[in-house]
Amino acid sequence: MRKFAVVLSGCGVFDGAEIHEATLTLWAIKKHGADYQVFAPDIPQHHVINHLTGQEMPETRNVLVESARIARGNIRDLKEFNPGEFDALIFPGGFGAAKNLCDFAFRGEACDVNKDVEQTIRKMASLGKPIGALCISPVILARVLGNVEVTIGQDTGTAAAVEKMGARHKKTGHGDVVTDLQRKVFTTPCYMLDADILQIAEGADHVVAEMMKHM
Amino acid sequence: MRKFAVVLSGCGVFDGAEIHEATLTLWAIKKHGADYQVFAPDIPQHHVINHLTGQEMPETRNVLVESARIARGNIRDLKEFNPGEFDALIFPGGFGAAKNLCDFAFRGEACDVNKDVEQTIRKMASLGKPIGALCISPVILARVLGNVEVTIGQDTGTAAAVEKMGARHKKTGHGDVVTDLQRKVFTTPCYMLDADILQIAEGADHVVAEMMKHM
Repeated sequence: MRKFAVVLSGCGVFDGAEIHEATLTLWAIKKHGADYQVFAPDIPQHHVINHLTGQEMPETRNVLVESARIARGNIRDLKEFNPGEFDALIFPGGFGAAKNLCDFAFRGEACDVNKDVEQTIRKMASLGKPIGALCISPVILARVLGNVEVTIGQDTGTAAAVEKMGARHKKTGHGDVVTDLQRKVFTTPCYMLDADILQIAEGADHVVAEMMKHM
Repeated sequence: MRKFAVVLSGCGVFDGAEIHEATLTLWAIKKHGADYQVFAPDIPQHHVINHLTGQEMPETRNVLVESARIARGNIRDLKEFNPGEFDALIFPGGFGAAKNLCDFAFRGEACDVNKDVEQTIRKMASLGKPIGALCISPVILARVLGNVEVTIGQDTGTAAAVEKMGARHKKTGHGDVVTDLQRKVFTTPCYMLDADILQIAEGADHVVAEMMKHM
C-alpha cells in the first residue's frame, strides 16, 4: 500500500493548517487506496489568532501539539521523517504553511523555510518521489526547489513572488492540478480561490489522484 | 435551498468537536445540495487536552472561539439560534459533545445539558424538524428527548446509559444510520467505532442523506 507523509502547520486557517484542506487530504489519500502518516515540526506557532474575531491572542501554542488535533494524536515530529518509509509527501494549506513552516506571510519571496521542512522536501525530491501542495503551500516548494511549475490559484501578488523565487506560476481554477512531471511536483489552489468545501474536496481528490499516477 | 444548523463543541477530539466528523458533516451537507451555518455555545471548555500526550494543559479555551477554527470564522453564538431559519439541526461528535455541550463524560446518565443546546433541540423537535447526531452526540438527544431511538455504535456501557435516560439503543456498524421517524432523529456511530476517515465520510454522508429525505 502506498504511503503519504502529510505535513501540517497547526490547526486553524489563520495561524495553522487549514482544517478542511487537511482533513480532506487525509480522506482523499484513503479514497485512492493509500495510507498516511501525519507529521509536524515541534516548534512554537508564529502567533495565535482568535478565529472568531481575527485578533491575535496573548498566548503561545506549539505546531506539533496543535496539529495533533487534526491527526487525533497519531502524529510524529518532522525531525523523525525517514524518506524510505514514504512514497509521497503532501502539504495541505492554511496560513500556518506561510507563517510556521516558512515566513512567506511576512517576507514574501525572501522567506526562510523551516530546516526540517526544507530537508524533508529535498530528500523526497532527490529520490524522485511525488510532492504535493495545496493552497498557499506551493510557495514553500518554490522557495526550496526553485525552478518548478506550481499554482497558487489566481492571486497576482503571490504569483509574482513565486516567480521571483525562480519558479513558474500557472493560473488555475477550482479543482485544477498543475503537474510538473520533471520535478514530480503537484499543486492545486483550494482556498487560495474563493471556494466552498466541495471544491476543497475536489482539489484534494484531484491532486492525490495525480500523485498516485506518478509513484 | 435546505439549511442545516451545525453545532460544534470546540476543535479537537479529546476536548472539543472531532475534526474529521465536523468537516465531513459540512462536506456531506454541501454534497447533498444543502447549505449550513455553524454554531457553538460561548462558554469555557471543560478543559484543554494536549492531543500529542493526552495530558491536561494548564490553560483555558472558549468553545465558540475554538469551534471558529473549523468554521473558518463563519460561526454564530448558539444563543442566537432561530429555528425559523433552519430546516435541520446536526451535532458532529468528539469528547467535546460529552464534556462541553453536556457533562455525560463525567456524570453518565445523570448528566446536565447546556441550556442553549437543550433549548435548540427542543425548539427543532417541537417543529418536527430533523435532528442528527454523530458518534457520542446522541447521548445529548437521549437526555433531552428521552423516549427516542438512537445509536452510539456498540459500546455496551454507553448504550446502557442511553437506555437509563429513557431512550432505546440500537447496535450499529460503520455507515449505519438509526432513524427514529416519529421523533425525526437520525444517528450514526462514526468514531464511536474503530473507524478510518473513509468510514467517517460514509457515516456523515448517510446521516445527512436520511435527514434530507425527511424535511
